[in-house]
Amino acid sequence: MKDLGWKPNRKSHVPLHKQIEEYIKGKILKGEWPVGTRIPSQRQLSDMLEVNRSTVVSAVDELAAQGLLAGKKGGGTRVINNTWSVLAADPPLDWDTYVQSGTYKPNMPTIQEINRAEFHPNIIRLGTGELSPHLLPHGQMHKIWNRTSNRQISLGYPEPKGDLFLRTALADHLQRIGIQTTPSSILIVSGALQALQLISVGLLHRGSSVLLEKPSYLNSVHVFQSAGMKLVGVPVDQEGIQPSLVCKYKRQYGGDLLYIIPSFHNPTGILMSEKRRHDLLATSEQQRLPVVEDDVYRDLWLDNPPPLPLKSHDKNGNVLYVGSFSKTVSPGLRIGWIAGPEPVMDRLADIKMQTDYGSSSLSQWAAAEWLSTGLYQDHLNQVRKELKYRRNSTIKLLEQHFGGVASWSVPSGGFYIWLHIIPSISMRELFETALKEGILLNPGTIYDRDADQYIRISYSYASLEEMEQAISRLSLIMNDLINRRE
Amino acid sequence: MKDLGWKPNRKSHVPLHKQIEEYIKGKILKGEWPVGTRIPSQRQLSDMLEVNRSTVVSAVDELAAQGLLAGKKGGGTRVINNTWSVLAADPPLDWDTYVQSGTYKPNMPTIQEINRAEFHPNIIRLGTGELSPHLLPHGQMHKIWNRTSNRQISLGYPEPKGDLFLRTALADHLQRIGIQTTPSSILIVSGALQALQLISVGLLHRGSSVLLEKPSYLNSVHVFQSAGMKLVGVPVDQEGIQPSLVCKYKRQYGGDLLYIIPSFHNPTGILMSEKRRHDLLATSEQQRLPVVEDDVYRDLWLDNPPPLPLKSHDKNGNVLYVGSFSKTVSPGLRIGWIAGPEPVMDRLADIKMQTDYGSSSLSQWAAAEWLSTGLYQDHLNQVRKELKYRRNSTIKLLEQHFGGVASWSVPSGGFYIWLHIIPSISMRELFETALKEGILLNPGTIYDRDADQYIRISYSYASLEEMEQAISRLSLIMNDLINRRE
Ligand SMILES: Cc1ncc(COP(=O)(O)O)c(C=O)c1O
Ligand SMILES: Cc1ncc(COP(=O)(O)O)c(C=O)c1O
Repeated sequence: MKDLGWKPNRKSHVPLHKQIEEYIKGKILKGEWPVGTRIPSQRQLSDMLEVNRSTVVSAVDELAAQGLLAGKKGGGTRVINNTWSVLAADPPLDWDTYVQSGTYKPNMPTIQEINRAEFHPNIIRLGTGELSPHLLPHGQMHKIWNRTSNRQISLGYPEPKGDLFLRTALADHLQRIGIQTTPSSILIVSGALQALQLISVGLLHRGSSVLLEKPSYLNSVHVFQSAGMKLVGVPVDQEGIQPSLVCKYKRQYGGDLLYIIPSFHNPTGILMSEKRRHDLLATSEQQRLPVVEDDVYRDLWLDNPPPLPLKSHDKNGNVLYVGSFSKTVSPGLRIGWIAGPEPVMDRLADIKMQTDYGSSSLSQWAAAEWLSTGLYQDHLNQVRKELKYRRNSTIKLLEQHFGGVASWSVPSGGFYIWLHIIPSISMRELFETALKEGILLNPGTIYDRDADQYIRISYSYASLEEMEQAISRLSLIMNDLINRRE
Repeated sequence: MKDLGWKPNRKSHVPLHKQIEEYIKGKILKGEWPVGTRIPSQRQLSDMLEVNRSTVVSAVDELAAQGLLAGKKGGGTRVINNTWSVLAADPPLDWDTYVQSGTYKPNMPTIQEINRAEFHPNIIRLGTGELSPHLLPHGQMHKIWNRTSNRQISLGYPEPKGDLFLRTALADHLQRIGIQTTPSSILIVSGALQALQLISVGLLHRGSSVLLEKPSYLNSVHVFQSAGMKLVGVPVDQEGIQPSLVCKYKRQYGGDLLYIIPSFHNPTGILMSEKRRHDLLATSEQQRLPVVEDDVYRDLWLDNPPPLPLKSHDKNGNVLYVGSFSKTVSPGLRIGWIAGPEPVMDRLADIKMQTDYGSSSLSQWAAAEWLSTGLYQDHLNQVRKELKYRRNSTIKLLEQHFGGVASWSVPSGGFYIWLHIIPSISMRELFETALKEGILLNPGTIYDRDADQYIRISYSYASLEEMEQAISRLSLIMNDLINRRE
């Protein structure tokens, strides 16, 4: 209940509190807020409805008087009745136990908090991992629509592995980065996240362990944990994850799969060196350890093209290669892909068919046009230029405001700067104070429970003016926290 | 490996068997067919590549001589080596154990067989549950593209519950069938199948039981079973599932959820009566049994509009209402929805964000245009007319060819006729003989293990000429089986 999508009408002759009362009553009577539902707090309601707290209070009091709502100690205000359940002798269905018993884990509270805060007006999102809306190619997307007449879009159920035209275009695209593959070894998915989801339920079982970089994006989502797998973080150095430690951790904690983000890692920005890639692939072969190579940031290099993917050297089919259009063209397309051994793609395609019958044909069609018209490469050139400028400016801002209190490496691509805060201050306090001042942070603990003294900065989303404001304000907040500590 | 997407070039000076040898070798060396992969049989290869069996044999023999392939007793031909693994001392990674250990169940063999057969050229698909491509609204979809300039399509990550404009249009749409709801109680999903998937992992746990009609579409997919739930089929009569039996089965086998398809049921075509809807809702309240009302065929009534949904009478929020554009506008859109209590929608939205970050923005945009422009209603009128004609003609064909040997009810909407074959013949033989003669059937056992003497006929997909051909040939095959039995 982040946003009600409704506000009282200030021009109406019906008093505001009455309108609110009727609105809430409607929700209850229609069963949208069934008995047991905890309604938003008075403060939240007054924020969401843009009215005084006292207006909310009188509406809620009236509903309590009518026997529909009641306050619970420490539990906020809940729906306790509706006209029908007053009449019915039976106690109503308790959705709460259902909502809590699903096997799928809810998002981490911090992430839920971030998701909610992203909708606050005027908030500066200092860590958001996507392109700013004005970097998204609205104009080019229009050009693509105008081409709809050239090729009939298939409106029926999609092919199991995805549109053949798109898979063919992708095989060409992958060829350019050294990956020799054919359309039958490619599976189209609804974003890279879904690739991971399918791998978790299709190739592993409860109790399997996944080795990964420490920290990692993968810790911020629950795909593997919700399917009953455990994640084992392996330390990294400046060249990426360390093969000798991969072996050691595998021996110690088990390891059924290795998940890596070798190019412009999320959240550290690290680019795995060419030598490290070769060593890691050799380790994978020697250990018979399948590798998921998540390469969604590869095309966003800012200084030099990165070394070829591990997949390009993989002659034994040990590597599942994952890519996506989300970070380059549009996350809204929800188009990603996996390239790997055909029997594995067959298995994952079968599961995909069983969970959502394939990805949107419109999106697949648009993705194929992006690749086959060359618009993709043109757009990349522009985005790289913009991102490079943003990265350089952000680094300057950090030098200006965080010299001495934080350390960082300069990323050579992607979106992220992994900021190490040197003085030991409470990151929870930093997060909350920043939020109160309109700055939303991504704390390091989302990506690694032990990364308490880190935050992920992204230079892809906020405008440079916002960056400047946020970074300077953040340094003031930090200084304040440091001083108070003493 | 249903389709290789490649055929040898008959115009080339390279002999066909040599081309095939090089092609297969390429697959092996690139790691697309890793060691252990079972390659298609010689018969399948000769079908897929459209060459003589002997051509395939000489290519495979040559590869076996080179040490890349080997026949296994009863196990077909497998990849046993590639140049690299010959050099490497270590045995290669065994993907097979991975493919078999995923928690998600593979599709039923019959369904995999059907999925494969659908790609045979010239096959008549007598049971396919979708609109024939020429009933899909290509022209109208073009009109919608031309409107892209009216409203900016959001290209960023989608909102958790889906595009607000679409949810608003859906709230209006649902209002017309008596469902009072607001956008915050609606969740957009990638098709109704994903709605079921989210419900399974979000609200139930391993060991939960789901009550459902016997037979049911739900038995043909694995969403609940793969998440560790069991399905309990409850007998139906001409008015739909029987409330007293729902209570009885719940007592006997447990029941955490009731899944029903009250309008133009898949596969029986049954329309639940108005009285039955009221009784069932009362049972749900009395038993505190949440209901999933899958209403994807509602708008496809052919004679009279169906009774209002159970959801329209649901004042306590017991019902989760599921709809989709797949059966009416386009399955390729992959747009469906759930309407239900807000805390439940919040929970499911949270999981959706964790599995695929939302549905395609393009599809959501197109769906909203379909609803808000009125094109949807126009299109429905046309589709209904077409389907009615198809239903009537199909019933005539059945009367003509199946009188005495089969029985059926005339559906008043949707796609399906549930054909009961009276003489006890081997349905496996019927399926296989029909397939050899180019007719693909959906056997009843897909929808109910005990429905051995049924097949699902769909009048939505094949053309009427194909219908006529297939039904008359099928009756000959049946007579033949009956005679041979004696
Ligand atoms: C490393 C990595 N993989 C996958 C994803 C998910 O991307 P998609 O939008 O393609 O699902 C992200 C997005 O943040 C990411 O950073
Ligand atoms: C009853 C029923 N529910 C759900 C679905 C899945 O539809 P969608 O394409 O919206 O996922 C089908 C499709 O066959 C169906 O028959």
